[in-house]
Amino acid sequence: MYIKNPNQIEHKSFDIIEAGMKEHNFNEQELSIVKRTIHTTGDFDYENIVIFKNNAVLEGINAIKPGCRIVTDTKMAFSGINKIALQKAGCTIDNYIDNEEVRKIAQELGITRSMAAIDMAASKGVDIFVIGNAPTALFRIGELLEEGKISPKLIIGVPVGFVGAAESKEYARTFNMPTITTEGTKGGSNVAAAIVNALLYMAVGR
Amino acid sequence: MYIKNPNQIEHKSFDIIEAGMKEHNFNEQELSIVKRTIHTTGDFDYENIVIFKNNAVLEGINAIKPGCRIVTDTKMAFSGINKIALQKAGCTIDNYIDNEEVRKIAQELGITRSMAAIDMAASKGVDIFVIGNAPTALFRIGELLEEGKISPKLIIGVPVGFVGAAESKEYARTFNMPTITTEGTKGGSNVAAAIVNALLYMAVGR
Repeated sequence: MYIKNPNQIEHKSFDIIEAGMKEHNFNEQELSIVKRTIHTTGDFDYENIVIFKNNAVLEGINAIKPGCRIVTDTKMAFSGINKIALQKAGCTIDNYIDNEEVRKIAQELGITRSMAAIDMAASKGVDIFVIGNAPTALFRIGELLEEGKISPKLIIGVPVGFVGAAESKEYARTFNMPTITTEGTKGGSNVAAAIVNALLYMAVGR
Repeated sequence: MYIKNPNQIEHKSFDIIEAGMKEHNFNEQELSIVKRTIHTTGDFDYENIVIFKNNAVLEGINAIKPGCRIVTDTKMAFSGINKIALQKAGCTIDNYIDNEEVRKIAQELGITRSMAAIDMAASKGVDIFVIGNAPTALFRIGELLEEGKISPKLIIGVPVGFVGAAESKEYARTFNMPTITTEGTKGGSNVAAAIVNALLYMAVGR
């Protein structure tokens, strides 16, 4: 015998997460996001490593409410984001990693496709960047910010891994704008998508 | 300055992972898989929790080599699997979670869409099940195995979470067939996709 009702499963899951968390200083909306990152990884360590800067959660919700343009670095983050909630919010979502021109530019310039994809996204305007995998994407966003070429409302930067990921997120936390990042090596496209979904649910419900 | 060459990034990353791992008893092919799960999560704990049963890695590679049919429980796992390697191997991949009939059946029977999707997949034959998210999918696979209704060659079962996930994987480890699972709450669609990719790379290269 096992629980087969999806709502019941999710409720029970969040009860267990809440009960398992330590004391913390998150506000209610931040807590919603942290709990969803724990939910998506099975890893309580996220309560220690998720970092909000410059009123990131409220700014994210405010960006989503009137409808906004979201860009992800990976197809996995793209596909993990709840499309029904997205539609309800009137938000659009794009990902350029498989774009033929991006592929060509990356090869020509000897840069990652993630970087070339950010350049292409930036040229069309982006409200929320969602970076779950590529440190190089986050570094590129920083360069474009410094050059004044983009003005997103929120950056979700949770690249995973051992080469540049921690550094890229440390760098992102210096941006003078709302960011949601993780400390250290952990993160990923699933974590990125979970953060977006938590914001969507707070902005427009389920 | 940061490394912008994707191959260089991946090589350096795997060197760091190898250097950071403890002593272990994995054979070379199992190690390949464990390293990729660490790579995709940034979490060295995977060296402690990935469990191979009944010669799972070799059986998986042997299933892939002549081409096989793979089914995932989520779109995220689906989208995280390397399509170029998949094509090279002559494998197909499907996911039924958004299928209209699956949605209808789930509602009518009061079961999860994941379970209904497994039923639909099973009716068409499956060589490798890839379950990254839904404990109920893994429980259903067990039921179908017990009923003699399916005969997959490998089950990758790494549901994440706090309600049934650990139990579903413990159950899967009792199946008298090749399985790759994780112990405890950790796992996820990204982990599932990473395991499939590691198998694909060993079977047909990059």
